[in-house]
Amino acid sequence: MELGMIGLGRMGANMAQRLVQHGHRVVGFDPGAQARERAAQGGIEPVASLAEVIERLPTPRVVWLMVPAGEPVDRTIADLLPQLASGDTIVDGGNSFYKDTMRRAKMLAAHGIAYVDSGTSGGVWGLSEGYSLMVGGDDAAVERLRAVFEALAPAADRGWGHVGPSGAGHFTKMVHNGIEYGMMQAYAEGFAIMQKRADFALDLGQIAQIWRHGSVVRSWLLDLSANALEENPTMSGIAPYVSDSGEGRWTVAEAIELDVSAPVITLSLLERLRSREDDSFADKLLAAMRAQFGGHAIKRE
Amino acid sequence: MELGMIGLGRMGANMAQRLVQHGHRVVGFDPGAQARERAAQGGIEPVASLAEVIERLPTPRVVWLMVPAGEPVDRTIADLLPQLASGDTIVDGGNSFYKDTMRRAKMLAAHGIAYVDSGTSGGVWGLSEGYSLMVGGDDAAVERLRAVFEALAPAADRGWGHVGPSGAGHFTKMVHNGIEYGMMQAYAEGFAIMQKRADFALDLGQIAQIWRHGSVVRSWLLDLSANALEENPTMSGIAPYVSDSGEGRWTVAEAIELDVSAPVITLSLLERLRSREDDSFADKLLAAMRAQFGGHAIKRE
Amino acid sequence: MELGMIGLGRMGANMAQRLVQHGHRVVGFDPGAQARERAAQGGIEPVASLAEVIERLPTPRVVWLMVPAGEPVDRTIADLLPQLASGDTIVDGGNSFYKDTMRRAKMLAAHGIAYVDSGTSGGVWGLSEGYSLMVGGDDAAVERLRAVFEALAPAADRGWGHVGPSGAGHFTKMVHNGIEYGMMQAYAEGFAIMQKRADFALDLGQIAQIWRHGSVVRSWLLDLSANALEENPTMSGIAPYVSDSGEGRWTVAEAIELDVSAPVITLSLLERLRSREDDSFADKLLAAMRAQFGGHAIKRE
Amino acid sequence: MELGMIGLGRMGANMAQRLVQHGHRVVGFDPGAQARERAAQGGIEPVASLAEVIERLPTPRVVWLMVPAGEPVDRTIADLLPQLASGDTIVDGGNSFYKDTMRRAKMLAAHGIAYVDSGTSGGVWGLSEGYSLMVGGDDAAVERLRAVFEALAPAADRGWGHVGPSGAGHFTKMVHNGIEYGMMQAYAEGFAIMQKRADFALDLGQIAQIWRHGSVVRSWLLDLSANALEENPTMSGIAPYVSDSGEGRWTVAEAIELDVSAPVITLSLLERLRSREDDSFADKLLAAMRAQFGGHAIKRE
Repeated sequence: MELGMIGLGRMGANMAQRLVQHGHRVVGFDPGAQARERAAQGGIEPVASLAEVIERLPTPRVVWLMVPAGEPVDRTIADLLPQLASGDTIVDGGNSFYKDTMRRAKMLAAHGIAYVDSGTSGGVWGLSEGYSLMVGGDDAAVERLRAVFEALAPAADRGWGHVGPSGAGHFTKMVHNGIEYGMMQAYAEGFAIMQKRADFALDLGQIAQIWRHGSVVRSWLLDLSANALEENPTMSGIAPYVSDSGEGRWTVAEAIELDVSAPVITLSLLERLRSREDDSFADKLLAAMRAQFGGHAIKRE
Repeated sequence: MELGMIGLGRMGANMAQRLVQHGHRVVGFDPGAQARERAAQGGIEPVASLAEVIERLPTPRVVWLMVPAGEPVDRTIADLLPQLASGDTIVDGGNSFYKDTMRRAKMLAAHGIAYVDSGTSGGVWGLSEGYSLMVGGDDAAVERLRAVFEALAPAADRGWGHVGPSGAGHFTKMVHNGIEYGMMQAYAEGFAIMQKRADFALDLGQIAQIWRHGSVVRSWLLDLSANALEENPTMSGIAPYVSDSGEGRWTVAEAIELDVSAPVITLSLLERLRSREDDSFADKLLAAMRAQFGGHAIKRE
Repeated sequence: MELGMIGLGRMGANMAQRLVQHGHRVVGFDPGAQARERAAQGGIEPVASLAEVIERLPTPRVVWLMVPAGEPVDRTIADLLPQLASGDTIVDGGNSFYKDTMRRAKMLAAHGIAYVDSGTSGGVWGLSEGYSLMVGGDDAAVERLRAVFEALAPAADRGWGHVGPSGAGHFTKMVHNGIEYGMMQAYAEGFAIMQKRADFALDLGQIAQIWRHGSVVRSWLLDLSANALEENPTMSGIAPYVSDSGEGRWTVAEAIELDVSAPVITLSLLERLRSREDDSFADKLLAAMRAQFGGHAIKRE
Repeated sequence: MELGMIGLGRMGANMAQRLVQHGHRVVGFDPGAQARERAAQGGIEPVASLAEVIERLPTPRVVWLMVPAGEPVDRTIADLLPQLASGDTIVDGGNSFYKDTMRRAKMLAAHGIAYVDSGTSGGVWGLSEGYSLMVGGDDAAVERLRAVFEALAPAADRGWGHVGPSGAGHFTKMVHNGIEYGMMQAYAEGFAIMQKRADFALDLGQIAQIWRHGSVVRSWLLDLSANALEENPTMSGIAPYVSDSGEGRWTVAEAIELDVSAPVITLSLLERLRSREDDSFADKLLAAMRAQFGGHAIKRE
């Protein structure tokens, strides 16, 4: 199959390379020259403009977007639209908000262009191990892309699936990331409890290794935790500062909108926010209140 | 009435002084000479040993303990026991764990000594405004102390009550403090949200003052928050470090033991623990995991 | 002062009546004939259309909206706009989302109409005790309304204030309600813990009464809890089903948007959602998972 | 190697059978005749008394306990003690509280008997897949048991390890279970969010299958969830009632004792408690409070 890949960052370049390794032809665009050069080494045909992507692809065209969620997706679609024709397909493989996806699909359908959302999980390991793909869109459009999904997934018959209409893929990926937050936080808390119990002098990397085989908590995130804890058992030099990329927030908002109480996913997000508050006003006010009613001493900064 | 007050710290001295102001006679003991001197100025008869307390009181004696929870209470009781006689009464007005209180009451009952627990709320303001007293113990013992409770409370007929058998007073006070944690955290979070919304340039002290009159959230803790926010609107110089004195922990443990889900009281305690973790291992591990699977950059310390 | 009150429901009618009691003239509109009749008994001049409100008011006019948040506010403003003139003032005293308020104020400013937001707390007790009012808007517009705020508040010089620009009043009220959720949940959990400890046979109404005087947790919500617990100590006939009116959700979303971790306010909202899930899919799946790995018995429906 | 297995329930019988399959000799005791018969079919030598276990084993003896945590462990040790000799070893492979383990190890050491704790994970799948074993105890005692651990684990060199002194094994297993609670809750919440979004008509079993390959959230618990969701997509007939076996409670208590904030593990436990409250007093009181201040209607039972 032949397709254009828009965005050759870490995720886009790896996915394009995996497609090339499976015999597909990929024309890749990225505004950065370095990104294009790296992609070329992976067998991707690099081009320096969206127009060239369109020119080099046979019709009906397939263009896969791996650009940051939000405005960049809208802008890319706006740039592509005049160059595309009815019958073409755009795939959004990024972490777009599913309601944006539904809006875009509707707009593009009016132009005869299919819009498929492919929630993509796997991170930097996807190139070698394959990606897990949650696909939303019309049956026909998804079916046309079957060979692409079969190549990106860990195997042709597993790790990917058509989960529902437009938006369903990104919705599913959003919830996936919410679960991911919760699992990560569960491990992090558990290891932190063990780390604090200093008298047992536990080797956390060893424990993670033990759990990887036969335990109820074995998982891929545990495999990665074992790596991290063996490389750096004391987490030396790492700031206790945890970023979030938006999907956790959306999952929390969605749960509330659906009237579903999801305390663990929610608290996982809140702990990330908390990790970035180094000077909590709430905690200062709590200390001040205690001084007011109990005469309790305040710790000074 | 005549009673001995053991422990002339902030709480004990104030309570003793309030009793004196209401016409009661108080013999007060504290190991610290300074504390005894201050108490003397409040009309308390200071003595330098437990033995003197006992000697100066008419029988049947009433001895009120205001000593730190735990071992100090057991030690004081052990010291007093040989000097007391059947018919005497000990009151524990401190923040003892209610199961300890139940154990002590049973032990003392075998010696004919009544043991009354009086959970005490009101902080440093109790001297002028009166204390809220949750009293546990036998009917007869509590009734004998009626005049004492009427003097300590804000008024003879309100702010105190006999809530149940031995331990019930301290149990009730424990839960009271759990609620206090939750309320404080609710206010602290709310003011922190308003503080973070910088473009409105809200005057938090003004808002607390507005709410004090007519709003659903008016309370004594809000009165204190208004004071704190007017004195120091930016919480300048105050470390975001919140201590806890044990009763919140007991409330959380009790809720779990009773199979009651109490998320707000529980999270209020956890936030206090979190305020004292300046180098969270959990958060470091989360950052390290994100780097493992997503290649996300780690913030360095 | 003379003003129009749009919406004579529980809140609107009570506020209008309080204004009348303080010597103001209020022309009141409500689509319901019954609501208009009740209002007339409170000294309000009832009219059956928005047009009549406008006609009966001297210019510059003051129109106070007490209509449900969201679309009804927009619709009412759209209906009023052609009938108003530059120099008139609209006050939104309801629970509007503050970003809607900012949008409306901007739109109306282009027509020379002032838009003031007055977050209003006090519930059904406001008629007799006065309302707590958090006011947002331009200085001049707020100043023109001073006599109205002084009449609605518990006293002329307290319980109300101009807190910031357009939107700041509703923002402050939103956070107020988030705090309210947290406080309510803290009390509810505490009383639930005491209720579950059956062997102490605690009288929860008595305990609430004790706490009302001198305790750290005394508050107006506690006064109400004492009423509720004395009227119905076992909460007999009341379903464990807690509604929410939207402001808690907004507070949670705002906290996350501002990167403020507010676990207690958040969990208070989630507990309300949880109270309405009588058949939690999450809990069923947890039970099914336990059966899968541990062979643990599942409770059947 | 030869050892006695005390307790031939689901876990004990399976572990004994796995040992037999690896060429070890196991004398097994259970008070239940049925359990002994089943064990006999797995190649275990069943006996009807502790005394027979001891008689049939060569010295120094190895006795492995798989009995319920708490009093049954103490009772079994008390029964065994007079029949054992210095140099013998007892292993506790159950879910004992680690502080009990430390106490027992100390007591038995005074009799020259080694006490090894082996936290055991793997559930009903351990027989075929092997168990994950976290071992605490003295070096020499653990080393003597090496062949046993190598047989029980998924492979001789993985899935088990000597993690620290007496108690460290059970401590590690306790935290393991806390993490398990958090992970399970994260999945359950995520699937519940997807289930509630009815318009996408997602096939949750399909999604779980997709995620099993290549996704960041792949894990053994997800494998089991996929089984559960494919067998019963609507969780039909399963009550939303989640039991807990104690280790989650201990983990929460331990975290608090160590001053570690572990919100996700804690909330996972609280959700299990909540799942068993079908008539929450807290929620009823919340509804009653809302009626008090806002005149909000109460839902009747």
